[in-house]
Amino acid sequence: MKIGFIGLGHMGSGIASNLLEHGHAVAVFNRTQAKSDPLVAKGAQRATSIAEACRNDVVFTMLSNDAAVEDVVYGDGRVLASLVNGAIHVSSSTISVALAARLAADHAAKGQGFVSAPVFGRPDSAAAGKLFIAVGGEAATVNAVTPLLNVIGQRTYLVSQRPSDANLVKLSGNFLSASVIESLGEAMALIGKAGIDRAHYLEFLTSSLFDAPAYKIYGALVAHETFEPAGFAAPLGQKDIRLLLAAADGLDVAMPFAGILRDRFLTLMAHGGERLDWSAIGGLAAKDAGIAKSS
Amino acid sequence: MKIGFIGLGHMGSGIASNLLEHGHAVAVFNRTQAKSDPLVAKGAQRATSIAEACRNDVVFTMLSNDAAVEDVVYGDGRVLASLVNGAIHVSSSTISVALAARLAADHAAKGQGFVSAPVFGRPDSAAAGKLFIAVGGEAATVNAVTPLLNVIGQRTYLVSQRPSDANLVKLSGNFLSASVIESLGEAMALIGKAGIDRAHYLEFLTSSLFDAPAYKIYGALVAHETFEPAGFAAPLGQKDIRLLLAAADGLDVAMPFAGILRDRFLTLMAHGGERLDWSAIGGLAAKDAGIAKSS
Amino acid sequence: MKIGFIGLGHMGSGIASNLLEHGHAVAVFNRTQAKSDPLVAKGAQRATSIAEACRNDVVFTMLSNDAAVEDVVYGDGRVLASLVNGAIHVSSSTISVALAARLAADHAAKGQGFVSAPVFGRPDSAAAGKLFIAVGGEAATVNAVTPLLNVIGQRTYLVSQRPSDANLVKLSGNFLSASVIESLGEAMALIGKAGIDRAHYLEFLTSSLFDAPAYKIYGALVAHETFEPAGFAAPLGQKDIRLLLAAADGLDVAMPFAGILRDRFLTLMAHGGERLDWSAIGGLAAKDAGIAKSS
Amino acid sequence: MKIGFIGLGHMGSGIASNLLEHGHAVAVFNRTQAKSDPLVAKGAQRATSIAEACRNDVVFTMLSNDAAVEDVVYGDGRVLASLVNGAIHVSSSTISVALAARLAADHAAKGQGFVSAPVFGRPDSAAAGKLFIAVGGEAATVNAVTPLLNVIGQRTYLVSQRPSDANLVKLSGNFLSASVIESLGEAMALIGKAGIDRAHYLEFLTSSLFDAPAYKIYGALVAHETFEPAGFAAPLGQKDIRLLLAAADGLDVAMPFAGILRDRFLTLMAHGGERLDWSAIGGLAAKDAGIAKSS
Repeated sequence: MKIGFIGLGHMGSGIASNLLEHGHAVAVFNRTQAKSDPLVAKGAQRATSIAEACRNDVVFTMLSNDAAVEDVVYGDGRVLASLVNGAIHVSSSTISVALAARLAADHAAKGQGFVSAPVFGRPDSAAAGKLFIAVGGEAATVNAVTPLLNVIGQRTYLVSQRPSDANLVKLSGNFLSASVIESLGEAMALIGKAGIDRAHYLEFLTSSLFDAPAYKIYGALVAHETFEPAGFAAPLGQKDIRLLLAAADGLDVAMPFAGILRDRFLTLMAHGGERLDWSAIGGLAAKDAGIAKSS
Repeated sequence: MKIGFIGLGHMGSGIASNLLEHGHAVAVFNRTQAKSDPLVAKGAQRATSIAEACRNDVVFTMLSNDAAVEDVVYGDGRVLASLVNGAIHVSSSTISVALAARLAADHAAKGQGFVSAPVFGRPDSAAAGKLFIAVGGEAATVNAVTPLLNVIGQRTYLVSQRPSDANLVKLSGNFLSASVIESLGEAMALIGKAGIDRAHYLEFLTSSLFDAPAYKIYGALVAHETFEPAGFAAPLGQKDIRLLLAAADGLDVAMPFAGILRDRFLTLMAHGGERLDWSAIGGLAAKDAGIAKSS
Repeated sequence: MKIGFIGLGHMGSGIASNLLEHGHAVAVFNRTQAKSDPLVAKGAQRATSIAEACRNDVVFTMLSNDAAVEDVVYGDGRVLASLVNGAIHVSSSTISVALAARLAADHAAKGQGFVSAPVFGRPDSAAAGKLFIAVGGEAATVNAVTPLLNVIGQRTYLVSQRPSDANLVKLSGNFLSASVIESLGEAMALIGKAGIDRAHYLEFLTSSLFDAPAYKIYGALVAHETFEPAGFAAPLGQKDIRLLLAAADGLDVAMPFAGILRDRFLTLMAHGGERLDWSAIGGLAAKDAGIAKSS
Repeated sequence: MKIGFIGLGHMGSGIASNLLEHGHAVAVFNRTQAKSDPLVAKGAQRATSIAEACRNDVVFTMLSNDAAVEDVVYGDGRVLASLVNGAIHVSSSTISVALAARLAADHAAKGQGFVSAPVFGRPDSAAAGKLFIAVGGEAATVNAVTPLLNVIGQRTYLVSQRPSDANLVKLSGNFLSASVIESLGEAMALIGKAGIDRAHYLEFLTSSLFDAPAYKIYGALVAHETFEPAGFAAPLGQKDIRLLLAAADGLDVAMPFAGILRDRFLTLMAHGGERLDWSAIGGLAAKDAGIAKSS
């Protein structure tokens, strides 16, 4: 199976690298071409255009937001115009439910396959093939790309035959993670203000009821207020809460926790949070309580 | 070490039973005496009064709220009046930070030891000696009761020498659990309304980033809207959020998630939620979205 | 000054009628042409196309949302293509800050004037020339249309020379009104559940600290739970809170009250609120408290 | 009718002064006796004890919180012990619904009358006899003191025969005022960050839909961020939201706006807000948005 791969940021590079290491032929493309170099050095073919990357059985896209995906998919020489009949577009970007639905319809109209396969995990998991993948798409199409997904992730969750459902699952997962961050932020502001050691407290939580990666990863960042460098940048986290709220709006689902997260990101951005990790929203409760390092 | 044990509800009975099984002499007391029978059958001594239960080296109290603890501790023939100098009161009830501080001061004034040792876990964990225990108290006093705590729990977390700090940790832990319930409730309302299977979704979450007891236990209850019978009754959960907010009020810590949880419990109670499990607050987002079984 | 008027809903008809009564020549256009009939009967000229309505010195648009305005303004034969150099477009619709900014730029590029003049008031105020108008636009352009605005409204507030600022003021005003509705809804749920008469209570409020139209109008609707027929339909109110939140998002301003209003509208819509007045969000607190007529 | 008056703070002094000016005999008492001097200079009798102040037909209490009222009412030589059978206690303090209910029961048991008559208005209104008064009590008892209430206030609202209902109305009114402050704070953060003049904006609001004292008074303070000196101190406002939430808790009424107000006061207190006016919570949205003078 010949693979094209568009979008070589932290996540995309890791995924493409994995596919290469598992013996797949991968033609890589990135707007800033220099990002292709390390992969070409590992044996990837360099695609000099989106169209060239699309001359394969499958093309992956891993981009930062809706606008980037729309830019790569729509227009002359772009994905929709370039994929041959029967080829498959696997979209791993975290995009809106609405855009995923539109992509599904447009690819179907062209006789092209479309699979939504957004991933959970940070760049190190991507490089290690340890991602968790939510997958949406028609059974036959999903089956065709399953061997590739098995390389990328440690676990694939087939959500439904509607691609956009996978995106909804991804957004809801980021909402749950952000809720973990906020709840830890509030709890640590409280016990911290009482003078209780936050690292010790976290160690207890994560060895009891909250023994899960989400609590370990974000708990450590919040306990130590270590919000730089950004593993997952705050503006991306904010974008995901926006997309979640847009999906909730479309379905008439009130989500009060999400509303609070929305406000947290706005306050963070109003105080120069662009370069911080998204877990920095977990520092705002301490700031409100007058005990943040930076307050 | 001779032990008195006051309060034989689901949690207390399990803990007392464990202590017996580990060879300790335990004199049990409960206001409704019939609750003592199963323990007496296992070899416990029946104490016919609080004062009698206090004629031991250590007396545990495991009661449902501040009022019950105040009733048992203060007054003629009660704990404070009955414990001999040097004996230790171990309070495992989930009570307010303020009451814990008051108990600490009053026992100290009498030359009695006081240890706050609230526990995390449901009745089955209590019976199995698998609780997690947050402990606060002076080092020597805590050391004296540590062998007993090791029987009761799988893990003891020594918070600080100030007993009430353990209560604050306990309340913050219940806040984190309630936040898990609410966040899952919102996420499942969203993906459920989109037509995605909730049980399947939960299985994915708990095998990836949210692989923790809190998500497994509460996720199953929320996914299936199984809120009866109550493992941990909603009025007790509501009480704990009240105590958390009272503590946060005393420390000037704003906790927006806690405010939402407060409102959820009020709405639950306004619709007959007294007999439900506290995870029933996780069903309110689905109700607001018009998709709850009962809505 | 010759006037074109596009959009003859409840608000637009009232405004156009006023202009006629004050002796202005008005050419009216509505997609559903029958809506022009009453105005033609009063002496208006019937424009059979948008382009025809634009062959005037000034063209007003009064439409229900961004999509309707975009549809009328952009494309062949639409406002932007039809207005002559120097003619002025007065937009009185409640639209997004972003669209207002885009209209300002596009009209300027064509040498056309643009004034944002969203209005406060219900249809009866429109018919009576008693609206309040927030106005944004370049001074000379605003001056040119001021005599017309003085006919429409009892008070004109010149916000700034940037048209979109008037839209921001309009959205913020609707946010304040929605906040009045919600706060009254919560207060009346509280005192109502205590058994205190709500109408009597309202009478006291509005004769003391809250002696303002917003409290009188919405208070009466909330006190009596009279949410039909809709004076201002809930979907329009929801749209305005959405636009407010979009503007706040663009400016990094967290607005917790607005987040709650957002959730209220979603819950209302999830329970069939499309046909209700927007003040129906003020009935949800009573519903949560278990005392609404309909709960 | 002979009157005793206990509690000569800003509000109490104003009220007592009015009663004197209308020809009533008033015996005044304050813990800090010097506060009696100005009233004695105006003709008041100085009561040297609570008991002495109670040797009258009616005794007013105007104190800062539940604790102060409990201290004055309960115990040897205090109000409950000192009032003769048939005398009336008029409580104008803003106290909890629970305490008002307790006072009503205790006075009834003693054959004493009890009227709850909390007031709306700032000290200048108290001095001018321009307060608004919510009144709860048995009809005959209320009738007996109505001539006095008519001196104190410009308007009396007889809520019900249950005294505590008047306290609930008072607390709900302060909740509505605090909601005005918060909504104005959010709206002004938004339009202010866009560069729109806040004073001009306020002038428009208060001359249109929001033409009410609450918007004028608090709007001016928020627009100019003039939070000192305190007309109504933030800790008192915080206390009232606490009492409101306690009442809502007792009635199972969820009040999301009140939850936000609660958090605002906590954040204010965590940043040294004790000496500010309660309208300072209306400055926190601007602070979150990064545009407050002090941020």
